[in-house]
Amino acid sequence: MDLVTFGETMARLENPVVGPMRHARALDLGVGGAESNTAIGLCRLGGTAAWFGRVGDDEFGRLITNVLAGEGVRLGHTVVDRSAPTALLFKERRAGTLTRVQYYRTGSAGSRLCPADVPHDLIRSARVLHVTGITAAISATARQALDDAVETARDAGVPVSLDLNYRRALWTPTEAGECLQKLVKRADLLFATEQEARLIVPDADDDLAGLAAGLAALGPRDVLLKRGAQGVVALCEGALHVQGAHRVPVIDPVGAGDAFAAGYLAEFVRGRPVADRLDTATAAGAYAVTVRGDWEGLPSRADLDLLKSAEDTVTR
Amino acid sequence: MDLVTFGETMARLENPVVGPMRHARALDLGVGGAESNTAIGLCRLGGTAAWFGRVGDDEFGRLITNVLAGEGVRLGHTVVDRSAPTALLFKERRAGTLTRVQYYRTGSAGSRLCPADVPHDLIRSARVLHVTGITAAISATARQALDDAVETARDAGVPVSLDLNYRRALWTPTEAGECLQKLVKRADLLFATEQEARLIVPDADDDLAGLAAGLAALGPRDVLLKRGAQGVVALCEGALHVQGAHRVPVIDPVGAGDAFAAGYLAEFVRGRPVADRLDTATAAGAYAVTVRGDWEGLPSRADLDLLKSAEDTVTR
Amino acid sequence: MDLVTFGETMARLENPVVGPMRHARALDLGVGGAESNTAIGLCRLGGTAAWFGRVGDDEFGRLITNVLAGEGVRLGHTVVDRSAPTALLFKERRAGTLTRVQYYRTGSAGSRLCPADVPHDLIRSARVLHVTGITAAISATARQALDDAVETARDAGVPVSLDLNYRRALWTPTEAGECLQKLVKRADLLFATEQEARLIVPDADDDLAGLAAGLAALGPRDVLLKRGAQGVVALCEGALHVQGAHRVPVIDPVGAGDAFAAGYLAEFVRGRPVADRLDTATAAGAYAVTVRGDWEGLPSRADLDLLKSAEDTVTR
Amino acid sequence: MDLVTFGETMARLENPVVGPMRHARALDLGVGGAESNTAIGLCRLGGTAAWFGRVGDDEFGRLITNVLAGEGVRLGHTVVDRSAPTALLFKERRAGTLTRVQYYRTGSAGSRLCPADVPHDLIRSARVLHVTGITAAISATARQALDDAVETARDAGVPVSLDLNYRRALWTPTEAGECLQKLVKRADLLFATEQEARLIVPDADDDLAGLAAGLAALGPRDVLLKRGAQGVVALCEGALHVQGAHRVPVIDPVGAGDAFAAGYLAEFVRGRPVADRLDTATAAGAYAVTVRGDWEGLPSRADLDLLKSAEDTVTR
Amino acid sequence: MDLVTFGETMARLENPVVGPMRHARALDLGVGGAESNTAIGLCRLGGTAAWFGRVGDDEFGRLITNVLAGEGVRLGHTVVDRSAPTALLFKERRAGTLTRVQYYRTGSAGSRLCPADVPHDLIRSARVLHVTGITAAISATARQALDDAVETARDAGVPVSLDLNYRRALWTPTEAGECLQKLVKRADLLFATEQEARLIVPDADDDLAGLAAGLAALGPRDVLLKRGAQGVVALCEGALHVQGAHRVPVIDPVGAGDAFAAGYLAEFVRGRPVADRLDTATAAGAYAVTVRGDWEGLPSRADLDLLKSAEDTVTR
Amino acid sequence: MDLVTFGETMARLENPVVGPMRHARALDLGVGGAESNTAIGLCRLGGTAAWFGRVGDDEFGRLITNVLAGEGVRLGHTVVDRSAPTALLFKERRAGTLTRVQYYRTGSAGSRLCPADVPHDLIRSARVLHVTGITAAISATARQALDDAVETARDAGVPVSLDLNYRRALWTPTEAGECLQKLVKRADLLFATEQEARLIVPDADDDLAGLAAGLAALGPRDVLLKRGAQGVVALCEGALHVQGAHRVPVIDPVGAGDAFAAGYLAEFVRGRPVADRLDTATAAGAYAVTVRGDWEGLPSRADLDLLKSAEDTVTR
Repeated sequence: MDLVTFGETMARLENPVVGPMRHARALDLGVGGAESNTAIGLCRLGGTAAWFGRVGDDEFGRLITNVLAGEGVRLGHTVVDRSAPTALLFKERRAGTLTRVQYYRTGSAGSRLCPADVPHDLIRSARVLHVTGITAAISATARQALDDAVETARDAGVPVSLDLNYRRALWTPTEAGECLQKLVKRADLLFATEQEARLIVPDADDDLAGLAAGLAALGPRDVLLKRGAQGVVALCEGALHVQGAHRVPVIDPVGAGDAFAAGYLAEFVRGRPVADRLDTATAAGAYAVTVRGDWEGLPSRADLDLLKSAEDTVTR
Repeated sequence: MDLVTFGETMARLENPVVGPMRHARALDLGVGGAESNTAIGLCRLGGTAAWFGRVGDDEFGRLITNVLAGEGVRLGHTVVDRSAPTALLFKERRAGTLTRVQYYRTGSAGSRLCPADVPHDLIRSARVLHVTGITAAISATARQALDDAVETARDAGVPVSLDLNYRRALWTPTEAGECLQKLVKRADLLFATEQEARLIVPDADDDLAGLAAGLAALGPRDVLLKRGAQGVVALCEGALHVQGAHRVPVIDPVGAGDAFAAGYLAEFVRGRPVADRLDTATAAGAYAVTVRGDWEGLPSRADLDLLKSAEDTVTR
Repeated sequence: MDLVTFGETMARLENPVVGPMRHARALDLGVGGAESNTAIGLCRLGGTAAWFGRVGDDEFGRLITNVLAGEGVRLGHTVVDRSAPTALLFKERRAGTLTRVQYYRTGSAGSRLCPADVPHDLIRSARVLHVTGITAAISATARQALDDAVETARDAGVPVSLDLNYRRALWTPTEAGECLQKLVKRADLLFATEQEARLIVPDADDDLAGLAAGLAALGPRDVLLKRGAQGVVALCEGALHVQGAHRVPVIDPVGAGDAFAAGYLAEFVRGRPVADRLDTATAAGAYAVTVRGDWEGLPSRADLDLLKSAEDTVTR
Repeated sequence: MDLVTFGETMARLENPVVGPMRHARALDLGVGGAESNTAIGLCRLGGTAAWFGRVGDDEFGRLITNVLAGEGVRLGHTVVDRSAPTALLFKERRAGTLTRVQYYRTGSAGSRLCPADVPHDLIRSARVLHVTGITAAISATARQALDDAVETARDAGVPVSLDLNYRRALWTPTEAGECLQKLVKRADLLFATEQEARLIVPDADDDLAGLAAGLAALGPRDVLLKRGAQGVVALCEGALHVQGAHRVPVIDPVGAGDAFAAGYLAEFVRGRPVADRLDTATAAGAYAVTVRGDWEGLPSRADLDLLKSAEDTVTR
Repeated sequence: MDLVTFGETMARLENPVVGPMRHARALDLGVGGAESNTAIGLCRLGGTAAWFGRVGDDEFGRLITNVLAGEGVRLGHTVVDRSAPTALLFKERRAGTLTRVQYYRTGSAGSRLCPADVPHDLIRSARVLHVTGITAAISATARQALDDAVETARDAGVPVSLDLNYRRALWTPTEAGECLQKLVKRADLLFATEQEARLIVPDADDDLAGLAAGLAALGPRDVLLKRGAQGVVALCEGALHVQGAHRVPVIDPVGAGDAFAAGYLAEFVRGRPVADRLDTATAAGAYAVTVRGDWEGLPSRADLDLLKSAEDTVTR
Repeated sequence: MDLVTFGETMARLENPVVGPMRHARALDLGVGGAESNTAIGLCRLGGTAAWFGRVGDDEFGRLITNVLAGEGVRLGHTVVDRSAPTALLFKERRAGTLTRVQYYRTGSAGSRLCPADVPHDLIRSARVLHVTGITAAISATARQALDDAVETARDAGVPVSLDLNYRRALWTPTEAGECLQKLVKRADLLFATEQEARLIVPDADDDLAGLAAGLAALGPRDVLLKRGAQGVVALCEGALHVQGAHRVPVIDPVGAGDAFAAGYLAEFVRGRPVADRLDTATAAGAYAVTVRGDWEGLPSRADLDLLKSAEDTVTR
């Protein structure tokens, strides 16, 4: 297995036309979750990925497993929890590209993830274990499961990839900073926005190179500072890389970070050098925002070629 | 004010095409709540109605108040609760006319209704206070508010109308039977299905007349046993009435009971005799099921004329 | 040309889901007009038909000519009126199969039809001229055009087909009765419902055979009394025919009369005997109600075969 | 009451996908009217507003009152006119952001507004009376009602706000210029585009400051020249203000002017200084164009915060 | 593995509203194939199923594998054919419940199924091998693959289930009769309509018991004659069973046969007696027609309980 | 007849929301074909046009003839081929404005076009014969028909207009270059992209003027090199014209070339000078891309005025 990941995946409901959600006559139904998005992304780029977590014994839980299985993600260790509902994510496309989020995830099946759910053998078999800070925020048992999984990976020499993914609705910056710092220290690969990074190393330099160095000093050998349309600043295996972003029309910025991680990890698990990882990561991130949806726009290899050839046409 | 009512009104999401909900690409968005349905029904039949309750400070709460205000329901005492979300009702149109319901209402704004929210003066000004058994089931504070409201009405000589509306997802038959029986004893008008009625008087006769008599013995002067396509058996002001239902194509049976209550109460508050109340109640119930939606098909007076003239055409 | 007809065709807007039109988020857009419906019906059954009338110089006028030309109806004499808008027809699918109609046709382009618009040579070339009572109701100039067209047909020995098509929103029964009686006297083929027929011969017998005879006494050699799901009573070329209707699921009854006329006339212009005319008429009427839309469900010959084979299957 | 306004509000139908309207299979249904748009805008920004006018006794009239009541606009003096239909506004989204409008408002209920409909006491109770030039154009009785309302306001010391809102389909520039000039002379606050302003003061300077001065010389103490993406030039309480527009993606420019007026008036009725009025006006106008619909994108205070924080993010 | 099956699964496009397909503005996209429908049905009833076949290297091929994998069907031996497109099935919902089918499957990936694609070990591991007559009709190589698969099953003692599934668009009755008779002789379980059965035993008795006996005489120990709304006549393990159908509203009759087979086989692989097999088969067939779609309405065990409880309610 | 053209027109299916086509729940249905697009474009600009070709005897064939006839294109010589299906074009709106195409046209009715289908008299009556390179690629018989049609036009002195329209899915660059060069030699007007032009004159200069000269040297008196957003380089009647493109928001670039040709030819057939031809061509091309669809956005004269006035507004 190239990648093992886990967390809470939710049913996602959003208004099809931009504006106040209450004006919508119908809400589009789909699924979303940072970790499973990345798992799908890795599969589309030709890798193999497993995701585990809990879903409710309801239509939304079945929707999640249908979508993930359909996309080729292995679900052998996913648990159907008969005593709690699947969590919901309402994504209000409010105005222009501004979005707002409302969760119904308190007491959800996904937040009941617990240490007993962790498939240690599966993790030991992985080329990389990918986790996010969200799992630490949803419940105490989930956080314990996260700790156990990371420990198992480290013991087995499986690299740990961490995307900080700070969610304001789930905890305060202070809570998050304290908890996530411990995770950073145990991670090999670290994905963060500048804002998230400063939760971990609040005293770091103003410049991004210094910020990356501050994070790398905590442990990770690859630190990826994602800057959206400004590209990425990366400190990987000791070298600094500054790379711009592709210029594409932005339809939906949500999921770009998960796409970036998927692109980076897809090359990482294949043993490709940093330059290739960054190329695929930035291309995947760019491609993803040209399609509506959290994961629907994750690219295949053929899509990346299409993106490249379109750029060639334009710049020629 | 002809009618005052209160309870929990929810955002309602349902699949537009019959089948498993997970196959839907989008869910239709609306609102629903037994009590507010009845309030809308009364307004459409020319009366005045007020509804109170709690909604969240979110798009779903605003949707509820927009819809109710738009339909003419007075909302002067409705509370926007900034610390809890609006409840959700998923209505899965599963197969044929079979539907299944899933709630996200634990800890919801609506279930936080409490005695302090009860507008006693408004209740005293009403021609009838209409309540349902659902309010007793959603929380302890809501049940207390229900008790207080009923007490105020009784003290002021305002008739109390009770629709049992047993909801299996909220409590057990035993819990419900015990609690609802106390309410029945304080009600003047009682609406129930046969199944609900037997929760209250489990030892009643097999036949419906006996069942109605058993309920009337507890206090209500008007007992309405709703039988869907079989019509109604009523024991009102001491006399038994057996009335068939209109024959209409059934598009969506949900909400028929609320329509029936609205029709009955619309004539009751105008001081019309029992026969007129039953006529309007059965016509309203029949009309409502010919339109999709919990309350969308509630008829105006003109709609009842349309129904009547269509029947005349057919039977001529 | 097998059939020439004329009148006012309108843009048609209707709610896609049954219920109050104000609840619709969008209204389906199409076209409709009794005469052009019949022209389409005749084309689908293999004949040739021309329609003329006025449309506005706007998108709705263009929609009408696009649809009619697309369906093969000849439009060489249709006028684009630059000083008046195309009329609108709102069809509210109110409840079950009950519909209500609201027009925006006062001062419309179509109602400005006038004698100068009548293509006399085209009429003289037709196997039948088909008109409806609606044209007499929309304006004085349209009524004059109708008179002129009928006169031309009669002078040229072209049979005149008249569908009474009484529209309550346009004139009173008294106005209509007086005017339409004159038309009946000049018609060779007459289509009417029982209710419409009694506007013309209010003193006719109660039974339908007598009613038909009363009409035939005014002039028409073929009198077709349409009875919906009860079939048809016809007095054609002196003989009485009573024919039942096909049993089909009714999706949308609107347009059944136009389909019936199209079926009858399709055989009439081919010189087929009365029995064939009635067979095709009743089959076309039955088929049309199984599809939503005023003319969209008009059958081709292949569709009539499909209907027949399905009935064979069921009854076998 | 913070704001009282009146005029004709119409059912609005538009094609959901850009292109010729005749290609649309369905038209989106909503409502629109310059004055009621502004009333909704004021309510969303926390104020209280009343609108009056006439609507037909049809589904479109009910749609209008449902929407306005739902949005919190007070409708106590709105008249249901049983003898005329509600007006229609077809908005063709023709190409890119180009739109075309077609009205069906001749003889409409709304245009039958007359002096007897004017609620003088309500006007006297307002902090501002807001009117537009459209009302002067739709009928003689409406123009008289407009005159009476303005006179009542002036007599009561209620400031009069006027948005010129010239509509080419309703009258000629010459007719409009003559009539509107008289209104300008009685207005305290004046909203206009440059093109509209030149109808009033055709001999004014070429530069906008001069144009504003020319208008102010006629009477208004606040003159707001709206310039779309170029911002606003304002001559308020004797001082000139030149303010740029927010940079936002334009989804639908229709309604920006009404949003601007709502923003300005929301602060005006709260006694805020000119700078605050202009800030809220430009922010409201900018926000509104990022959402499709004439009024659907009118912002709440929270939306303005969201807009601001998004801009901070981008510019940081 | 409970069930192994194979064949051609196609992208399915159908008009969402009944009527001529050319009037549709959009066609609903899904997948369909008799064998994979049955595989899905078995999974929903709690069994395990594998399907194999060829799909094109295009979006439709990916759609098919996504849907089947999402539904839990094992696809380990499915081939992506890079040199031919996925077949298409247009399902025209023409009128009422009448449908017409148009294929684009000549030279399709699915029809290129060949002996080399047959996973013999997988077949040997199955509790039943399920095949249909369609595979024999789509190409010579597919027919050979079918022969090989059946031979492998027989050699391994795996029961062979055959659904005749005659498709008029693919071959003539004579061609089909000759070829399918050979298959019947090697089948253990046989599903057929009366019309299909007579292709095999044209000289059988008129009555259905005789027809079933004629088929059983060729080899199959279980013969199931499906009669739609009339139920089933079965000759299983030597005993005749005549069973009526459930009475349900028919939304879409397509797929009822596949559901019936899935229900029968779901009990067969669990070793349940004939009575149970027939109960589940008829219930699954009934349930399936209450939902639109070829396989979308295939029931879970919970759905069958729902169906049963609804019937209890109605008949009580 | 101003313009005669012919070729293969297909049913067109595309995903309504950008992203992988397999995620679409429904595909929008329309028609498309380079030659018929141009014919529609010419009609919309006020000219007369005839198109001929073959369509299947199916709903898609009927859709094509309905749409073309509805748009005013003359179809008197179009053949309904009862032995082959109408071709399909799937247009996947993959990401941003990137699209991908998949055909189902092997063995289609349209590709069975043959010399016997060519209406020589119609061609002789035309002001211009318009052909594209696609027809040469779809089959040998179609190529022969193309040759015959061109020969007839040349013999009759009817100018031949050729749009190279190279389609990668149909043939290789080498095949295309060889075949199309022969066509270029017989063309009077030539439309090409730079890439297409280099297939014909691979040794031409790098600069576009030289490339145009190279093509003109083969015969055409007007050579139009289309450059999308960069405008056009034209060598017409011996003079070089370099013209920029209008700046418009690009919604759908497909069909811009057909619009350009339609604009150019609309003026050519009216005998307008080159400058006018280029103005209308560039305006039509620009307008077309602001509307979704291959031909839906083709402008009328009024649309070109609208485009012009909008540009005036912006640039003022």
